[in-house]
Amino acid sequence: MMYSFKNDYSEGAHPEILAALGRTNLEQQDGYGEDAFSLQAAQLIKQRIGLAELDVHFLTGGTQTNLTAISAFLRPHEAAISANTGHVLVHETGAIEATGHKVISLDSSNGKLTAEQVRAVVAGHGDEHMVKPRLVYLSQPTEVGTIYSRLEMEQISRVCRDLGLWLFVDGARLGSALCATGNDLTLPMLAGLVDAFYIGGTKNGALLGEALVIRTEGLKADFRYHMKQKGALLAKGRLIGIQFLTLFTGDLYFDLARHANRLADQIRQAISQAGYRYLTDSPTNQIFPILPNRVIDELLKDYSFYIWEKVDAEHSAIRLVTSWATPAAAVEGFLEKMKELQTLSARNS
Amino acid sequence: MMYSFKNDYSEGAHPEILAALGRTNLEQQDGYGEDAFSLQAAQLIKQRIGLAELDVHFLTGGTQTNLTAISAFLRPHEAAISANTGHVLVHETGAIEATGHKVISLDSSNGKLTAEQVRAVVAGHGDEHMVKPRLVYLSQPTEVGTIYSRLEMEQISRVCRDLGLWLFVDGARLGSALCATGNDLTLPMLAGLVDAFYIGGTKNGALLGEALVIRTEGLKADFRYHMKQKGALLAKGRLIGIQFLTLFTGDLYFDLARHANRLADQIRQAISQAGYRYLTDSPTNQIFPILPNRVIDELLKDYSFYIWEKVDAEHSAIRLVTSWATPAAAVEGFLEKMKELQTLSARNS
Amino acid sequence: MMYSFKNDYSEGAHPEILAALGRTNLEQQDGYGEDAFSLQAAQLIKQRIGLAELDVHFLTGGTQTNLTAISAFLRPHEAAISANTGHVLVHETGAIEATGHKVISLDSSNGKLTAEQVRAVVAGHGDEHMVKPRLVYLSQPTEVGTIYSRLEMEQISRVCRDLGLWLFVDGARLGSALCATGNDLTLPMLAGLVDAFYIGGTKNGALLGEALVIRTEGLKADFRYHMKQKGALLAKGRLIGIQFLTLFTGDLYFDLARHANRLADQIRQAISQAGYRYLTDSPTNQIFPILPNRVIDELLKDYSFYIWEKVDAEHSAIRLVTSWATPAAAVEGFLEKMKELQTLSARNS
Amino acid sequence: MMYSFKNDYSEGAHPEILAALGRTNLEQQDGYGEDAFSLQAAQLIKQRIGLAELDVHFLTGGTQTNLTAISAFLRPHEAAISANTGHVLVHETGAIEATGHKVISLDSSNGKLTAEQVRAVVAGHGDEHMVKPRLVYLSQPTEVGTIYSRLEMEQISRVCRDLGLWLFVDGARLGSALCATGNDLTLPMLAGLVDAFYIGGTKNGALLGEALVIRTEGLKADFRYHMKQKGALLAKGRLIGIQFLTLFTGDLYFDLARHANRLADQIRQAISQAGYRYLTDSPTNQIFPILPNRVIDELLKDYSFYIWEKVDAEHSAIRLVTSWATPAAAVEGFLEKMKELQTLSARNS
Repeated sequence: MMYSFKNDYSEGAHPEILAALGRTNLEQQDGYGEDAFSLQAAQLIKQRIGLAELDVHFLTGGTQTNLTAISAFLRPHEAAISANTGHVLVHETGAIEATGHKVISLDSSNGKLTAEQVRAVVAGHGDEHMVKPRLVYLSQPTEVGTIYSRLEMEQISRVCRDLGLWLFVDGARLGSALCATGNDLTLPMLAGLVDAFYIGGTKNGALLGEALVIRTEGLKADFRYHMKQKGALLAKGRLIGIQFLTLFTGDLYFDLARHANRLADQIRQAISQAGYRYLTDSPTNQIFPILPNRVIDELLKDYSFYIWEKVDAEHSAIRLVTSWATPAAAVEGFLEKMKELQTLSARNS
Repeated sequence: MMYSFKNDYSEGAHPEILAALGRTNLEQQDGYGEDAFSLQAAQLIKQRIGLAELDVHFLTGGTQTNLTAISAFLRPHEAAISANTGHVLVHETGAIEATGHKVISLDSSNGKLTAEQVRAVVAGHGDEHMVKPRLVYLSQPTEVGTIYSRLEMEQISRVCRDLGLWLFVDGARLGSALCATGNDLTLPMLAGLVDAFYIGGTKNGALLGEALVIRTEGLKADFRYHMKQKGALLAKGRLIGIQFLTLFTGDLYFDLARHANRLADQIRQAISQAGYRYLTDSPTNQIFPILPNRVIDELLKDYSFYIWEKVDAEHSAIRLVTSWATPAAAVEGFLEKMKELQTLSARNS
Repeated sequence: MMYSFKNDYSEGAHPEILAALGRTNLEQQDGYGEDAFSLQAAQLIKQRIGLAELDVHFLTGGTQTNLTAISAFLRPHEAAISANTGHVLVHETGAIEATGHKVISLDSSNGKLTAEQVRAVVAGHGDEHMVKPRLVYLSQPTEVGTIYSRLEMEQISRVCRDLGLWLFVDGARLGSALCATGNDLTLPMLAGLVDAFYIGGTKNGALLGEALVIRTEGLKADFRYHMKQKGALLAKGRLIGIQFLTLFTGDLYFDLARHANRLADQIRQAISQAGYRYLTDSPTNQIFPILPNRVIDELLKDYSFYIWEKVDAEHSAIRLVTSWATPAAAVEGFLEKMKELQTLSARNS
Repeated sequence: MMYSFKNDYSEGAHPEILAALGRTNLEQQDGYGEDAFSLQAAQLIKQRIGLAELDVHFLTGGTQTNLTAISAFLRPHEAAISANTGHVLVHETGAIEATGHKVISLDSSNGKLTAEQVRAVVAGHGDEHMVKPRLVYLSQPTEVGTIYSRLEMEQISRVCRDLGLWLFVDGARLGSALCATGNDLTLPMLAGLVDAFYIGGTKNGALLGEALVIRTEGLKADFRYHMKQKGALLAKGRLIGIQFLTLFTGDLYFDLARHANRLADQIRQAISQAGYRYLTDSPTNQIFPILPNRVIDELLKDYSFYIWEKVDAEHSAIRLVTSWATPAAAVEGFLEKMKELQTLSARNS
């Protein structure tokens, strides 16, 4: 059967998670996230961040977390701002708008917003005939694998504070960003610069689950009401609690992200050495090499992955994703296949 | 530690489910409910119902299923009708209203609506100054443990068809209703009488998950869009698929419900024999005995459960819930304790 | 042609309003409520209330005012409380729910809520599984013509402040309440007891328009954004401004209400003397006499009005509404007809 | 006092409208748009269009009409498409999003969408992870004064029918488009190409009011429910009915638009002859000349108008709007002032 580099959610969960579910299975616990496991997991996350006054909530997935948080944080006439590549703008079926809020789209070639763009949006929204921009949504890493540097995030954070905007970070793949080569923005730094963010579990070894962290006092009140109303409070909240407890006991969460990144690095280097370029400069577990269409066609005989976009008549960018579950052997096989294709290609030309 | 009769979601999942998660863990599958497990599980459910033209979708919990289905089925000016005990009216933090729809409340002493009440509501909503009643929401079993008979459901179904109303059934504990002593409404019959309903997994042995079944053609289109928009499409949709596949392979789903019902029956009979009455006539796994407050106080020293409502100065109704996970020994212990309390009581009086 | 007692909005506007529209017609003014007339009208209303720190906004009708204000004042998980006769609950097509908020219905036999009921609702909403009651909506006068006394309003106001609830008053017919015989709640008193309320123009001599008054500081911010978003900012806002300017220059607003009340009083006394009872104890311009069906049938030959509800096999309550535009002669004619019917009836019996 | 070219809603209503309001003032009529005037006005509009099977509804303003129609026409996961200059995207405070729907923005340099752009949007929205484009919103004339030709509108209409999209036209200034020099798209043609559109009254001589015309059968049902729910049914619906009755008796509506256009033409020609260019090619009553900033500063001493956008360091585009109420003398004065400024300028250079 074909090996898939389509996603980092093609398998189940890391075995330690399954073991923990088994171990705790018959313990009776309170429902709706008030179980001992969820409470402990929240505690561990707060310790890892190093701030005591945080609220941590566990939700089932990224779209749910984004829509619950953003609709809780905004008043009816207020809008979010996002890069045009933002998950909330592109791939959530209008979930934010369905809660009543416009998402203002900003052009971006690399998936990132700049502080200057944010400032310009606010300047361009002058009176009650327009929505009031109130929240900046950004993804770390972005949907095209790039990451914000510490300096970039500080600049955005500063402009948000100056202009009275909430800063909310979608961390569906936050582990990969935190462990990326060249990353200089640690988890505690990030937490200090934003109003709220989430730590993705689904794409880093959990069956499901995102840990939403709310730092700003004014955003904390009644958040569980919002969760319940949006269908985000699981009766067996323990299911997510146990998983984050496992991931944040020791370094498992980061070990899994490092594994995914290391394998992505191997592919990236090999493809670069083969002379190909990339659509974006991604140091994380999603990479977007631009390959000749005939190479892509050959690769698709043995591997599955997404063709991301057409680049010119003869080239396309593809997306390759590695994960905690990707075996080293799968990457080796893929790279050998690439090499073969190049040799053939060289011979034929 | 105290044994809890508070809920049927106090433990994890039935061991066969955990085993299936382990067995399939590293198989690569497509995301968002398009994995082989979910497809097979949907197939099994359709076979069990005996109708081919059904759409089956897997969602994470009851509130999410209710809000996604009801908001997908209604146009903006249309309203749902529910008994005043209905979960959507009482315990979902206004989730339906948050999608824009009023829920019309009907008085009910036993958790059930009648066809007559539905007819009267429609008659009382005459023009565009009032919402247009368009969907009947009911729970089988109800939130107070009672069940609709085949005849009652047929009457409601008929009035819905006469008046152009959708009939939607919340089956969070459907297993218990289907396996209850005296129940004469089978799964295929139910499916034939309604427009959509769901089969609850969370409260019958799954970690999470409800299987929404849509029978009526006009309600099927684009349902996955609604799910995605409401945050209800899990990236690892396999998680719910595997569980329903396990529950509906053989008779596991029904065996678990029967187990819960049998233990509830034991408690019910013992308490009846002790001379106590019940708040409602429940043949399912939630029972509501009315006990003297001093008996309740004694029981609470060894068991946890909810005090449901004050009945008079000296008596209250409590809620006892059994589940697939309740050990026979826990019930025996509870009944012995009851007996002791009675003996003491007899001696003292 | 038949004379109609169906409504207080069956005619156009008081002639002074039409004259003012004509007089000012070609003056160029800024749009969207920032014209000189609207600013002056707001000023007059503040003077009449005697509080300087009020925000006054002009909207087109009652439903629009209710939905714009309530959705601006509440966060997503918060709910309004209303008597079951409340306009927002019965006759606004789910407008409040369409903005995402549940309206909790309280039983009422006379159209009024009590402080005790409000307290009980809050006590019964304990945690995040239920909506959070946050705003009390009441109508002065109520939809069945009754009025809150000063004491009753003070009690409700106190419970709202104790429990952190906003108090919002629908004053679609406020003029009639303020001028009713026996009323002891003046406009300044009312304004001091509530967080926001509106003064109805449509039903007291204007072509359209309601003046929303916001007293509580925390509810004022960005209200014009909410108005614009809900379609409530008229390009020619002057249209409402000029009307309220006319109504609140001198005593016109109150003179019109007094006229309507006086004629309602005449009908009320005559019908009482004839030995008939009333559905509600209304001192305002809507009255609900209970008449024999055969009397009603005869009256309907010459007058139009609504049959409000069936009382018993032979009697129904009807609704008679007078207004600023009702001619004294119409009332005289109606009362003569009543007298004739009685004489006939006496002769026949 | 300064003369204002800021808007076409700076004055009240055409005198014939005020006269009609006066004439009919004391006639008793049914409320909520069921009065004889509204029914007759709808009849006249249908005759003018030449199609019998149309539904005509009267609403108070553009934002209200847009939000009520679009939210009634779409299901929750469906989105509207608009040029990035579209009123719904820019100047309605997120009113469409507040009803739950995303508005997809398309780049446009002249305020117009093309059929090709629409086709590309649909092609780019493939599955349930994205909203489903379902309605094309366009303005005739556009917000920058340009108009769609018959051919352009036919092409867009065809692509909408091919792809199953509703075509909805915002006609806030439709009179001006229909009467513009060079326009080849008549009212009956337009009606035949779209699913629904509205005929603006507010900006063409009425105090307020837009006439929404629904042609497509499937969009008609229950529309008055949507209006009531959004606060768009006026108790004294006669107010708008009388105005449209007046405007569509004889040719008044078109005479007023022709007057506004003729004066705009005079300004346009004079400014063109003076050698200035325009931001857009507008044949309607809004024109956007690009003038030297020092000329603008001088003009602002005697006239008020909006500076629309900065063009370069020394030039800006301004917006000049004429209306039914603009006196010929005001335009003459303005053009003389322009001429003086040019003479001075010529002398100084």
